[in-house]
Amino acid sequence: MEHDAFPAWPDVAARLIAVAAGRAPADLVLRQGIWVNVHSRECLPDHDIAIAEGRIAYVGPDASHCTGPETQVIEVQGRYMIPGLCDGHMHIESGMLTPAEFARAVIPHGTTTMFTDPHEIANVLGLTGVRLMHDEALLQPINIYTQMPSCAPSAPGLETTGYEITPGDVAEAMQWPGIIGLGEMMNFPGVANADAKMLAEIAATQRAGKTVGGHYAAPDLGPAFAAYVAGGPADDHEGTCEADAIARVRQGMRAMLRLGSAWYDVERQITAVTEKGLDPRSFVLCTDDSHSGTLVHDGHMNRVVRHAIACGCDPLVALQMATLNTATHFGLERELGSLTPGRRADIVLTSDLETLPIEQVFARGVLVAENGSCLVDCPHLDWPDSARNTVHLGHALSAQDFEIAAPPGANSVRANVIGVVENQAPTKALKADLPVRDGLVEGDGAVCQIALVERHRATGGVVNAFVSGFDYTGRMAMASTVAHDSHHMIVVGTDRDQMALAANRLAEVGGGITLFRDGGELALVELPIAGLMSDDLASNVAAKTQKMVEAMIDCGCKLNNAYMQHSLLALVVIPELRISDLGLVDVRTFEHIPLLEPQT
Amino acid sequence: MEHDAFPAWPDVAARLIAVAAGRAPADLVLRQGIWVNVHSRECLPDHDIAIAEGRIAYVGPDASHCTGPETQVIEVQGRYMIPGLCDGHMHIESGMLTPAEFARAVIPHGTTTMFTDPHEIANVLGLTGVRLMHDEALLQPINIYTQMPSCAPSAPGLETTGYEITPGDVAEAMQWPGIIGLGEMMNFPGVANADAKMLAEIAATQRAGKTVGGHYAAPDLGPAFAAYVAGGPADDHEGTCEADAIARVRQGMRAMLRLGSAWYDVERQITAVTEKGLDPRSFVLCTDDSHSGTLVHDGHMNRVVRHAIACGCDPLVALQMATLNTATHFGLERELGSLTPGRRADIVLTSDLETLPIEQVFARGVLVAENGSCLVDCPHLDWPDSARNTVHLGHALSAQDFEIAAPPGANSVRANVIGVVENQAPTKALKADLPVRDGLVEGDGAVCQIALVERHRATGGVVNAFVSGFDYTGRMAMASTVAHDSHHMIVVGTDRDQMALAANRLAEVGGGITLFRDGGELALVELPIAGLMSDDLASNVAAKTQKMVEAMIDCGCKLNNAYMQHSLLALVVIPELRISDLGLVDVRTFEHIPLLEPQT
Repeated sequence: MEHDAFPAWPDVAARLIAVAAGRAPADLVLRQGIWVNVHSRECLPDHDIAIAEGRIAYVGPDASHCTGPETQVIEVQGRYMIPGLCDGHMHIESGMLTPAEFARAVIPHGTTTMFTDPHEIANVLGLTGVRLMHDEALLQPINIYTQMPSCAPSAPGLETTGYEITPGDVAEAMQWPGIIGLGEMMNFPGVANADAKMLAEIAATQRAGKTVGGHYAAPDLGPAFAAYVAGGPADDHEGTCEADAIARVRQGMRAMLRLGSAWYDVERQITAVTEKGLDPRSFVLCTDDSHSGTLVHDGHMNRVVRHAIACGCDPLVALQMATLNTATHFGLERELGSLTPGRRADIVLTSDLETLPIEQVFARGVLVAENGSCLVDCPHLDWPDSARNTVHLGHALSAQDFEIAAPPGANSVRANVIGVVENQAPTKALKADLPVRDGLVEGDGAVCQIALVERHRATGGVVNAFVSGFDYTGRMAMASTVAHDSHHMIVVGTDRDQMALAANRLAEVGGGITLFRDGGELALVELPIAGLMSDDLASNVAAKTQKMVEAMIDCGCKLNNAYMQHSLLALVVIPELRISDLGLVDVRTFEHIPLLEPQT
Repeated sequence: MEHDAFPAWPDVAARLIAVAAGRAPADLVLRQGIWVNVHSRECLPDHDIAIAEGRIAYVGPDASHCTGPETQVIEVQGRYMIPGLCDGHMHIESGMLTPAEFARAVIPHGTTTMFTDPHEIANVLGLTGVRLMHDEALLQPINIYTQMPSCAPSAPGLETTGYEITPGDVAEAMQWPGIIGLGEMMNFPGVANADAKMLAEIAATQRAGKTVGGHYAAPDLGPAFAAYVAGGPADDHEGTCEADAIARVRQGMRAMLRLGSAWYDVERQITAVTEKGLDPRSFVLCTDDSHSGTLVHDGHMNRVVRHAIACGCDPLVALQMATLNTATHFGLERELGSLTPGRRADIVLTSDLETLPIEQVFARGVLVAENGSCLVDCPHLDWPDSARNTVHLGHALSAQDFEIAAPPGANSVRANVIGVVENQAPTKALKADLPVRDGLVEGDGAVCQIALVERHRATGGVVNAFVSGFDYTGRMAMASTVAHDSHHMIVVGTDRDQMALAANRLAEVGGGITLFRDGGELALVELPIAGLMSDDLASNVAAKTQKMVEAMIDCGCKLNNAYMQHSLLALVVIPELRISDLGLVDVRTFEHIPLLEPQT
């Protein structure tokens, strides 16, 4: 269960040679397709591909010399043969699916390789959680390489994670078979300040000859950026404009252009290639975060490549950005990313290079999907109880846990309020004058309560505050154990009884998202693995999350991506105001601030 | 002496960060040059480069924030700043110079990185010889990476080398600090036939995550070539025409385009880029073999880049082929090959990108050459006696050792004769009717004698034969211990006494090249290291080889590259007829043949 059992090129070289020479028959021959060559950047009609041992043995105009009676022959009939698509950086947990179910969902979209950073589970279960994700990844029929998470906690001192990642953890993980590098180094101020812990993690990765993922989420391209680059991150997917992409490429990094469910960073950066004419080899496409609904309804890397082409990118260049460029970046160019001898036979057949219909998908020489259906098993790990029971409340919660006491004698108070802004990850730090009833501060129409419920160590801790923007009405509460990045539990509601009901319900089901109104549960997404993921089918998870969205609308919330907004309210690395298990955090100053303004 | 002492990026990251951020001063700042960016493929005027710890800390429009009172500042004054040039594949021994003296010769030409295959010394001294070359390479102020030789002997069964290289040797060498991969896999029929020894060497290299060098020297691009590719070689420098280059790149190999002293393979292949428009990223420039005269009078990688540009290649693309493309191929992209943070500060200043005058050269942040002069020490290894005394004759030779007995009673015999063809490595298998005098076969005006004198094991073995094409006159002989690939001693002469004098002279001086006429020595190139290399200056070696050429001309030989032709006559892998310590070899059939035709 722990090792990538797929044989290496040298394990099977003798057979590949024999097939190429015509002395032994191939297992499979794809006959007479257009060879999309990402090395030379050409489309070459009338080519055959011969496959043996799951690898490509021969590509040429005629594979009849390696075709025997037992060789399976598939007539490609002039369609394009493109390399399986690679996602250069992504988080499986964002789909709220386990690696197996994520794989099952993306295989029909032509994705055969993913570089995945299990950052979320690292916050909940530490190195053990990373290993579980890594192990299930290696069971899959496609290639899922793990980037060792670098930043748990992502904001030391501002929150308490379930576990922390140390440089020792990083050094240990670099020895695992499926680890390809370090996950996005989000602590960019730390790197720019030569923080010893961050540099030790980078050093462990570089010394292992692996790739350090970057994450520089600031517009400043001056000395702070230069200092980050000098620290070693080799790519960055946080660019949002052409200048960002150009700066990264010039400095020797890969510019990863991102199209996630809620990230639209390709169109404004790809002009660096399409208009400014930069050498495209340093550009890589990725998704970063895809919801299950996106996977079910829209696609995965095929969606990104199509989008890049729609933005004016030459189809062959766009395909390079999702195949060879990615493989080269991670040192895997001789293993995958092109349709050439020795590489894994990861092949997509499509009849159009621009609209990119994914008609047949081969992974390691096996037909794994056809016309949108996954044809293979995606094995599940036997997840241990420790990963399935991760919602540890100190006690059953009641309305009292969510009470916010007013200063003695006050009739009204001025509170700091987290202001949600539609379609933006940053929040606003607002202030509101709120009423006091029976000594307790209450929400009003625009402002409701938010609570961060500690769930890792069963401390019983509940931090209460206020939030605006959801526009909830009636007596309701919504709770989620997807609560970036430390993934405690975020409860938002208009009524303290409903808040307690929702929180206790998540403890009961082992985590997920729930919405209560008037004492009844309107919707539930069970996420039993670490409170983050379901091992159910993507289509079921997508249907449940859709029902959750509808329930939120029913309760008055009209925000786009509303449950994602909910899950980000504890993300104490993005401005302006957030909540953590340690209190309210002003992310402009990285300081804790009080909930209530002093009485004047 | 055994380890590359240059600190790794993570060793110095904290300092680089501090410099980039402006918190610490750089050691050196290059001010206001044109940044030749090989990632983006752009020329960016008005840029500064800040250097610390021998690595680049910052590149940007203004490095004044990292310039302190002790920072050395060099005004680039609008010249181009290009990455130090990389030679993708070469043999140091071809210059008849030790690594130190080769480095001293090429540094003024802007070469700061070489990928070198010490194949010649491997034939003489085996793994020990490779290690000595490797160790001296690591002492140099520039980057010399060693490719572990793969094929000694290059033609098993047809010759006896001093030592043989085994798969175990390859596996051991992969652990040495300076080994970057496997040297050119010349046994392409062996690979195509899945020869177990060749595949084991390739496997050891691939499992170490290193690069397998290729050498496919046949025009057949059908299944035999496909089988070779399926075996794992990742590059090839033996292509000679556009179709060769295109085939290699399409199959996922790097096409290495070669301009050596006697190889002219760039012009006919680079049209794959300049005319056919292939993605240039898979093309790499190299020299393979450079004589000391070329290094002294013409240049090194600067000569190759200039030539590529003269062939119509865009200067930035040509520079990529000698910098970033090379680094990427060997997995060193984050270490060298571009002027970006973290990389070794290997920088050339030039005022013109087309004629490429090499004005100043920096290696690891140190000014190592200026206007053609090398400014640094290139340390010599203390070569052991075993490497300096490698000419082991069984006994002092006399004229009798070179006698060729005729069949009893014959007045004339028909002999197989090695026919030298000017400017071509292949020879012709000729036949000649030769006179008999006193029972011995004699040469005539066009045909003289050639002898292969065993010198590794002191067997006393001398194999005698005939050669034509040198047109020597008078009583003379020339001898050389540079005698590819097994490097015994080749003696060519018109007179058996002179042949003995020449052979004994090389035993006396420890190897080299000598020419005797009428009992006196006309010219001598001493090559005391393994009988292959001098530890003298390149200019002295070049002067001595020039004197040798003049002496050959004096003796009637008008061949171009005459002493190279001499040294190749035992190369039993190139058709048609060669001599080895085991006899005459017909390289068309890979069989030994007799010297004299049977009497009819």
